[in-house]
Amino acid sequence: MRIPYAELCQVLQRVLVDLGFETERAGLCARLFVDASRDGVYSHGLDRFPRFIETIKNGIVDIHVTPELISARGSFEQWDGRHGVGNLNAHASMSRAVELARAHGIGCVALRNTNHWMRGGNYGWQAAEVGVIGICWTNTMPNLPPWGASEPRLGNNPLVIAVPRKEGHVVLDMAMSQFSYGTLEAYRRRGQALPVIGGFNQAGELTSDPVAIEDSQRALPIGFWKGSGLAMMLDMVAALLAGGTASHEIAPDALKETSLSQMFLAFDLPADDQLTAALVEGIVTSVKTARPAGKEKIRYPGERTLEVRAENLAQGIPVDVSVWKKVLAM
Amino acid sequence: MRIPYAELCQVLQRVLVDLGFETERAGLCARLFVDASRDGVYSHGLDRFPRFIETIKNGIVDIHVTPELISARGSFEQWDGRHGVGNLNAHASMSRAVELARAHGIGCVALRNTNHWMRGGNYGWQAAEVGVIGICWTNTMPNLPPWGASEPRLGNNPLVIAVPRKEGHVVLDMAMSQFSYGTLEAYRRRGQALPVIGGFNQAGELTSDPVAIEDSQRALPIGFWKGSGLAMMLDMVAALLAGGTASHEIAPDALKETSLSQMFLAFDLPADDQLTAALVEGIVTSVKTARPAGKEKIRYPGERTLEVRAENLAQGIPVDVSVWKKVLAM
Repeated sequence: MRIPYAELCQVLQRVLVDLGFETERAGLCARLFVDASRDGVYSHGLDRFPRFIETIKNGIVDIHVTPELISARGSFEQWDGRHGVGNLNAHASMSRAVELARAHGIGCVALRNTNHWMRGGNYGWQAAEVGVIGICWTNTMPNLPPWGASEPRLGNNPLVIAVPRKEGHVVLDMAMSQFSYGTLEAYRRRGQALPVIGGFNQAGELTSDPVAIEDSQRALPIGFWKGSGLAMMLDMVAALLAGGTASHEIAPDALKETSLSQMFLAFDLPADDQLTAALVEGIVTSVKTARPAGKEKIRYPGERTLEVRAENLAQGIPVDVSVWKKVLAM
Repeated sequence: MRIPYAELCQVLQRVLVDLGFETERAGLCARLFVDASRDGVYSHGLDRFPRFIETIKNGIVDIHVTPELISARGSFEQWDGRHGVGNLNAHASMSRAVELARAHGIGCVALRNTNHWMRGGNYGWQAAEVGVIGICWTNTMPNLPPWGASEPRLGNNPLVIAVPRKEGHVVLDMAMSQFSYGTLEAYRRRGQALPVIGGFNQAGELTSDPVAIEDSQRALPIGFWKGSGLAMMLDMVAALLAGGTASHEIAPDALKETSLSQMFLAFDLPADDQLTAALVEGIVTSVKTARPAGKEKIRYPGERTLEVRAENLAQGIPVDVSVWKKVLAM
């Protein structure tokens, strides 16, 4: 079932207004959910909306607060998210980082005590759409075993890097685990093996069987020890600079996960737009024209997003009927 | 064969002075090479020194220049490395980023037209040793196929993230390929398979056979498509912000590789050192006390470096005899 973009936005906004959101904030919060679904990240779009509503009702998310400035030093600012709405807090933080970058060349917002930002890529696209390089990352509850360990102690700490490009922004949005648990679930439901190894089975062997990984809870960090190290560093830098909490201090329960620490960096681009555009185009072209290894197209980060977006805007956004019914009844 | 740290420094410095380096610059350049060997990164320490000397002699590296400031906007500066000595340029850039961070909270130096920085970790340790968070990365000549391609078009673009810690800094130093060609060579010489898959064979199958990967020149990006995307973004951001060249514009030849673009970020830490130390310690302890999956110790990034460093400082630094003889004869 497909629903038009505007209709999805209206329905979600209405639910949020009914819950007590101010109209404008409800509109932005709804749009950020729908943008995720529009771009094919259904797990952090509409599919996640009912759980988001639960975290408002259980008191994890306070819909009435906005981030508070804690300290400012030129282009570096610390903000407290005050356990507000995760996607609104993140959007406000990237906006502020962009303002700082316009004024100082570089802008950095370190945000503490915030909630799940849902789809991280949104804040990369946000920066790129105003012509600025955006880099952001978040910590999460522990959901990834450190390399050499059999229990989750690290977050999968998504990292987003976005570069503006007229023909389609280049936006990387990647977690430190090879596959999210949402993706494992999707493969399981389709009865498919993962395209590459994605974790360990109970016997401690690498496997591409999604069920075995769900059983062991031992997802694979990207690059084995490397992704484990990178996840740890991203957590450390975000928590330290925000003066916030680290992954191991966060409740390992999707309905109680809160007090996340996030980093938002923005870089104003050099004035000469033609040179900038030529350089970006040169890199994209070089990658895309490499000799293919197989039949699949070589893509740049964000390319597939634009294809899905175009399809979903034209034909409506695919929704899970049970989720959609649940939301309509809210 | 093991040589004391001080003796290695003296010999390398002498060679550099004979080549026309100013004494102090020769001392720092030599120390950066020896620090790499001291920390176990032999491939980018003494073993790389003869090739570095070749690039001075063939005109790729100009030993007489220092970086030039191109533009300054508060905490963001662009510098031109003027094809000078890669490790000295990188060291100067991280120093400058640290100065900017002390003044503004955050500091960023984007460096263009520089040469190979040798061991990237050095500049992370440099920041951590003065109590500052350091993040830096470089592009390289094309040596990594984009995901889905069979020929190198991306650099392996090492990324370094360093956080200061009294009991031993936490320093991640990782390239975007699962293994460097230097590591593949080391496994080949020992007749060993890689501990995990590291690339493709000529038939396009994933393999842990180092020889097969050397043959195909298809090293594996960390996390498959993810490391490919991250390598592309790091190249793009560095080249754009430095106003420099991107990997695909760099000669794919270790003796001609030049005009690299690099990024150096530094973050001054919040004033309250006790809270900072407790947070870092909490993360390290949480990771290290996770239930082990096997017999191997769970380590934080940089931990093994300190062990090797202690051993090499106590017993002397292991050198390849043929390389050492070559250097002594210079």
